[in-house]
Amino acid sequence: MQAEIIAVGTEILLGQIVDTNSAFIAQELAQAGIEVYYHSLVGDNADRLTAVVNQARSRSDLVIISGGLGPTKDDLTKQTVAHLLGVKLVENAPAMAKIRQHFSTAERPMTPNNRLQALYPEGSQPLKNRTGMAVGAFYQDPNAADIMLLPGPPSEAEPMFAEQGVPLLKATYHRSEFLESRVLRFFGIGEGKLVTELADLIDQQTNPTIAPYAKVNEVTLRLTAQAHERATAVKLLDKMTATIQDRVGDYLYGFGDDNTLAAVVVNELIDRHLTITGAESLTAGKFQSTLGDVPGVSAIFPGGFVTYANSAKHDLLGIPQAIIDRDGVVSAATAQQMAERSRAILDTDFSLSFTGVAGPDSLEGHPAGTVWLGLAQRGHEPRARLVHLTGTRAAIRERSVMTGLDWLRRVLNGSK
Amino acid sequence: MQAEIIAVGTEILLGQIVDTNSAFIAQELAQAGIEVYYHSLVGDNADRLTAVVNQARSRSDLVIISGGLGPTKDDLTKQTVAHLLGVKLVENAPAMAKIRQHFSTAERPMTPNNRLQALYPEGSQPLKNRTGMAVGAFYQDPNAADIMLLPGPPSEAEPMFAEQGVPLLKATYHRSEFLESRVLRFFGIGEGKLVTELADLIDQQTNPTIAPYAKVNEVTLRLTAQAHERATAVKLLDKMTATIQDRVGDYLYGFGDDNTLAAVVVNELIDRHLTITGAESLTAGKFQSTLGDVPGVSAIFPGGFVTYANSAKHDLLGIPQAIIDRDGVVSAATAQQMAERSRAILDTDFSLSFTGVAGPDSLEGHPAGTVWLGLAQRGHEPRARLVHLTGTRAAIRERSVMTGLDWLRRVLNGSK
Repeated sequence: MQAEIIAVGTEILLGQIVDTNSAFIAQELAQAGIEVYYHSLVGDNADRLTAVVNQARSRSDLVIISGGLGPTKDDLTKQTVAHLLGVKLVENAPAMAKIRQHFSTAERPMTPNNRLQALYPEGSQPLKNRTGMAVGAFYQDPNAADIMLLPGPPSEAEPMFAEQGVPLLKATYHRSEFLESRVLRFFGIGEGKLVTELADLIDQQTNPTIAPYAKVNEVTLRLTAQAHERATAVKLLDKMTATIQDRVGDYLYGFGDDNTLAAVVVNELIDRHLTITGAESLTAGKFQSTLGDVPGVSAIFPGGFVTYANSAKHDLLGIPQAIIDRDGVVSAATAQQMAERSRAILDTDFSLSFTGVAGPDSLEGHPAGTVWLGLAQRGHEPRARLVHLTGTRAAIRERSVMTGLDWLRRVLNGSK
Repeated sequence: MQAEIIAVGTEILLGQIVDTNSAFIAQELAQAGIEVYYHSLVGDNADRLTAVVNQARSRSDLVIISGGLGPTKDDLTKQTVAHLLGVKLVENAPAMAKIRQHFSTAERPMTPNNRLQALYPEGSQPLKNRTGMAVGAFYQDPNAADIMLLPGPPSEAEPMFAEQGVPLLKATYHRSEFLESRVLRFFGIGEGKLVTELADLIDQQTNPTIAPYAKVNEVTLRLTAQAHERATAVKLLDKMTATIQDRVGDYLYGFGDDNTLAAVVVNELIDRHLTITGAESLTAGKFQSTLGDVPGVSAIFPGGFVTYANSAKHDLLGIPQAIIDRDGVVSAATAQQMAERSRAILDTDFSLSFTGVAGPDSLEGHPAGTVWLGLAQRGHEPRARLVHLTGTRAAIRERSVMTGLDWLRRVLNGSK
């Protein structure tokens, strides 16, 4: 079983954007036990696309193509593939309904080219686009390689491939074997340290396999086990998970592809009927917005404060100017005051505060990346914690929020 | 003149790392006026590498290969290319001296495989590796495509290509053309509608070329012009920009690859010494956090309010419960009150407010995506605007923020 990956798009051909879909698809295929020998990249040109797809069909068993399913004249992947397969394009009714619904809700007229996005090659299985408009497809060809079509934007291609493409490929090519995988999510440990701690397990991996992956501000491990019975595969995963937890469980915050540190913390708060607020300086609302990403958060989050300027720390939270004058705004005292006063005003069980230097300039003599976090808890003295972060302004703000969430996760677990 | 790019490496083939060299090389080639039709990616395997390089040599004039010049057993690009060219590998004395120097400084013994990094195909011009060990090469072949070899790590490939590769290619192929490009950024118009409005321009495009690209919540157009003089290329871009502005200028918010709607609005406020705050319900801090992304925002943004629960709208902003009871929280009256009261408390020139249904559940009988925006301006009556958005919870919150920023941009422009 040999697959080949093709990315289509003049913008990626010219290097204006970097193709990340192919790497994502390759990783998922590796986890599914499907080998990949070639990636190709071609512009929005029917002749060259035809040549590349025909070559792939002749030397591989499966061709996965991303890009060129959109509504513009540039987008011709679907038309080209249908033509070389000798089939016509047909309309997918649910996709068409979603497109009509979108334009009707947006109160904008639907231009005819948008209908293109609902078309797919006749005889293939359509793949629903949960996060966009253009429908994907999986065409099984008895005479040459099978072909899967995915949209170009990673926000559409990744969920479509992970949620529908991979299960479909597993069902099609691995009828007798179960592949079970499990994602372990870590915060506060780098990829280098993690693979060092698990070096022997990674070296000896067979079943389950262990694939580390460094994301922005977190690291994940994907374990994949293979067995004739699903229960056996799950047992293999459970055993390896326990071994890993023994070594680096302190950094393990959760499981699953779509999970986040915010979701883990918010769901724990919901389960325990504990409420939270925040007071944010350098993060400017990013912590509260991150809580807001989690459905159901309204049960435990009434709202809170963005106190970017010193005046707002005084006006909105009533922090005495004397404290700011004495200790500075980047200080334990200010962080504690921000957390405790916001908690008291909204009468919540917890509050997190963030005050520090996002950069690029320094502040009060502190370099960019100097951040004080405050944590207030009903019935306890407020606490503060200093961290030194590196990277861009965006990275420092993001990392501040993650560090605060991880602190609260540990407090909720009773560890620190 | 047609070039082709090949990346070599099993790690990139399996998606463990994303290939960024190819995009970098493609961009530099485009700037040098050299067309690229294909990228390929192949693992560290001599047979498949030979097949891919031979195909490239037969259909292109120039093949640029990155990766596989290192000292390990996996690295076989140089050996494979020398073999298919029918030449032997020879030692580059300066590269060898650098390798010896490195091991001597590090006080480590030099293993024999490290000598490999100083070898290059006989008859080619060696390319010095300023940031690493492995020497590159440029081989001019009278019978097939010319070949350039670059190292795999971007920290070595990028400076080698930009500093030596590109000047060598320009000198070799006598490219005297300038390529200038410009990115136009649009909000509030879909990709389908935009390309329909510009259909004739896109159909007839020659110089400049016009490439549309749909990003999350915005669309960009990249114009690229070619001329013997830089000034002529810029004039071509100016003329096409003016034509596009005539048709869809209402949606054009700015220019440039790294620009954002938030940066345009914040910088306009800074220039005009106008301050802003916000009061956020469904967006839960995302609007203020987006302002916080822009360096220098502290000059015009003191902070603001996250009023997620009804109680917070009352407790923090003093919105009378009677208004919420009468009109509901998803209403023009609540949006106007949120904007005006937050503006008054922090004494700013503007405030934007956001109240609505992020989903997945409906609220007060309104479906997910029903959002009221409020805009308060010093000395004016507050206003409110209703929008109906589609997509995931994250998309609705993001789109709400963008819609608010665009409204403010238009108000600052005096248009609405």
